[in-house]
Amino acid sequence: MATIVQKFGGTSVANAEKIRRAAGRAMKAAQSGKHVVVVASARGQQTDELIADAKELNSNPPKREMDMLLSTGEQQTVSLFAMALDAMGQKAISFTGAQVGMRTDDSFTRARIQSIDAQRIRQWLGEGYIVVVAGFQGVDEKGNITTLGRGGSDTSAVALAAALDADECEIYTDVDGVYSTDPRKFPRAVKLDRISYDEILELASLGAGVMHSRSIEFGKKYDVPIHVRSSMNDNPGTWITHEVPQMEGILVSGATIQKDLAKIGLVNVDNRPGNAAKVFAHLADAKIIINDIIQTEVSKEKANLSFTLAKGDLRDALQALEGVKKEVGCDSVFVRDDIAEVSVVGVGMRSHYGVATTLFRAMANARINIDSITTSEIRISCIVDLADGDKALTAVCEAFELDKPADKRHR
Amino acid sequence: MATIVQKFGGTSVANAEKIRRAAGRAMKAAQSGKHVVVVASARGQQTDELIADAKELNSNPPKREMDMLLSTGEQQTVSLFAMALDAMGQKAISFTGAQVGMRTDDSFTRARIQSIDAQRIRQWLGEGYIVVVAGFQGVDEKGNITTLGRGGSDTSAVALAAALDADECEIYTDVDGVYSTDPRKFPRAVKLDRISYDEILELASLGAGVMHSRSIEFGKKYDVPIHVRSSMNDNPGTWITHEVPQMEGILVSGATIQKDLAKIGLVNVDNRPGNAAKVFAHLADAKIIINDIIQTEVSKEKANLSFTLAKGDLRDALQALEGVKKEVGCDSVFVRDDIAEVSVVGVGMRSHYGVATTLFRAMANARINIDSITTSEIRISCIVDLADGDKALTAVCEAFELDKPADKRHR
Repeated sequence: MATIVQKFGGTSVANAEKIRRAAGRAMKAAQSGKHVVVVASARGQQTDELIADAKELNSNPPKREMDMLLSTGEQQTVSLFAMALDAMGQKAISFTGAQVGMRTDDSFTRARIQSIDAQRIRQWLGEGYIVVVAGFQGVDEKGNITTLGRGGSDTSAVALAAALDADECEIYTDVDGVYSTDPRKFPRAVKLDRISYDEILELASLGAGVMHSRSIEFGKKYDVPIHVRSSMNDNPGTWITHEVPQMEGILVSGATIQKDLAKIGLVNVDNRPGNAAKVFAHLADAKIIINDIIQTEVSKEKANLSFTLAKGDLRDALQALEGVKKEVGCDSVFVRDDIAEVSVVGVGMRSHYGVATTLFRAMANARINIDSITTSEIRISCIVDLADGDKALTAVCEAFELDKPADKRHR
Repeated sequence: MATIVQKFGGTSVANAEKIRRAAGRAMKAAQSGKHVVVVASARGQQTDELIADAKELNSNPPKREMDMLLSTGEQQTVSLFAMALDAMGQKAISFTGAQVGMRTDDSFTRARIQSIDAQRIRQWLGEGYIVVVAGFQGVDEKGNITTLGRGGSDTSAVALAAALDADECEIYTDVDGVYSTDPRKFPRAVKLDRISYDEILELASLGAGVMHSRSIEFGKKYDVPIHVRSSMNDNPGTWITHEVPQMEGILVSGATIQKDLAKIGLVNVDNRPGNAAKVFAHLADAKIIINDIIQTEVSKEKANLSFTLAKGDLRDALQALEGVKKEVGCDSVFVRDDIAEVSVVGVGMRSHYGVATTLFRAMANARINIDSITTSEIRISCIVDLADGDKALTAVCEAFELDKPADKRHR
């Protein structure tokens, strides 16, 4: 018997009517002969309201207590969801993360799943119940309630699908699927039928907010097919799966733009082994996350070292660098906070030439100056002036025909 | 080191300011050198709101799911309470009922406590923490969340006090303590300094809504001194304790009136062993709770059998009696739904004569006709016309001087 995990986000369960609609979907899947596990988030803005309640009492609330508080949001949704199913005549039972053995470490507010005891869920599925599990939460070794942090319910869903060896994990959301780029920035963007785990991981790390990286990583590790689709209609959405042969024919699957970046350059750093390591160790100590790093030799003795980071971290980063500047022989530090990074992602790049050429030609035709370039195996990113950002994204989308379905493009 | 359990009801934690005030109280107790355990209810009207959410989805929600839903209210309060203590610099940790091993049976929505694992709480108390426990809830053998029903948080608090062998259990509420009668009905009613478990059990069963019977029964069984007091001031409230010698000097501790009663009389029932049992078995099958029973012989062959019950059960009771009327030879059934029951309660009755005389004289002086009388070891109740109810209560309160402190009365 096929098993399906259906995850409903906060907007999809925001009120009684929406819960009923989502429950109807779960029931339909059960009636089609599938074992159904539902994972639900807190209703609508409830998590935000609880955070506000907490802040009213404590500007820096203990993280353990925050998890104790926030986990109630999902618990409410799942009990209400089970009641809705019961009202439709469908057997259903709800569980907290702790009750289904969603064991995590004790990093409160951003815990990592360690194991899941799927036995209890399997037993209820076997008896014809839809099992409704609170997303976003788990329990540590000592029985403390933990939460999984941003995108936690997606992670719960995909992890449960993995533990249950489910045939698919449906992620119901308020968009139709994954688009070739953000339709608010390039209105002709098309919905992708399929994208690989690796591609969407690159896009997620570039800020395209469809799903959180951790849930994708789970899906990749345990080979869980993920179907991102709209809770408002029955249209097929986007499948996130392992790479399949036809994906290689697609040069670029998606494009993104990041505007909240800054760039720091260290000029004339002594070109000695270990100097870069020293710089980034200082930044890591200050808990600053670095995006891309570019090092270029100026001479045998000197190199320029630059990197991008979130604009919000700029001040802390500069402070952290104060301590190491002299040590690595750096002459001066320059900063740019007026940049945007435009990226294209596609597994097809691995086996095709000319992607960089197409990209640079598109930029040149649009008269956009490229500040710097970084690449990964399936990604090319350009830093451009912030003012040129949107124009650059449009140029790139047009050059790679991201307004057309993959099989209708020239290559 | 002394241990104290402090229970704060929903009105005492209804908003951030009230939570802060309650937390201040707990902290003060901790600073005075006590181990402090706080038991808290759901904030304000939250339980009612959650019930409304449930009813919107299911007019008859499964009880297990109701418990799953409602238990979130207390969980939110305790985490917020712990945050408030943390903000004041006081170490604090919150727990759900399940986390402190509040084991119950599986009667969802009205579960009974079976055992408490006090070890975990003791350990945190030993490390200087205030332990904040969600009231009203427990966990069954299989890990399902249960709730204890009406007055559940009081029961949680007294049961925890018993399990921890606490020196006292403070019940913070929106009244100053237990009054000799309802001050809304007899404005000169006085607050009692002390009352015995047995007396308050009689009063509670008569509908005087200070604390639920189950929590008092726990207190009595495990000899937990209970201090009912106001969360708005520091005045001493009322101590509920085992009977102490001075209580015997007090004839009547309290008086109550119940107006939601009806009386059913079966006329000329065959005076044979087992007939009364048959009647009440039929009523029990219909899940009808009987208050007082009066049987009087009419002749050797015939008796009149009457009893009081909640007015709301009248219709079901009459229907249940249809099946048994003929069997017991009853001629006719009469009904009164225009009655009130006025009761006086006091352990002093056990050792004093004349209580009944005083009561009847008071009624006579007020020209109130007494329909019928029932008594227990520490209680006398009169059924009167509903229209005379309030006048009867006033007459009784004046006769037993319930407007004076116990030591200022004539006897």
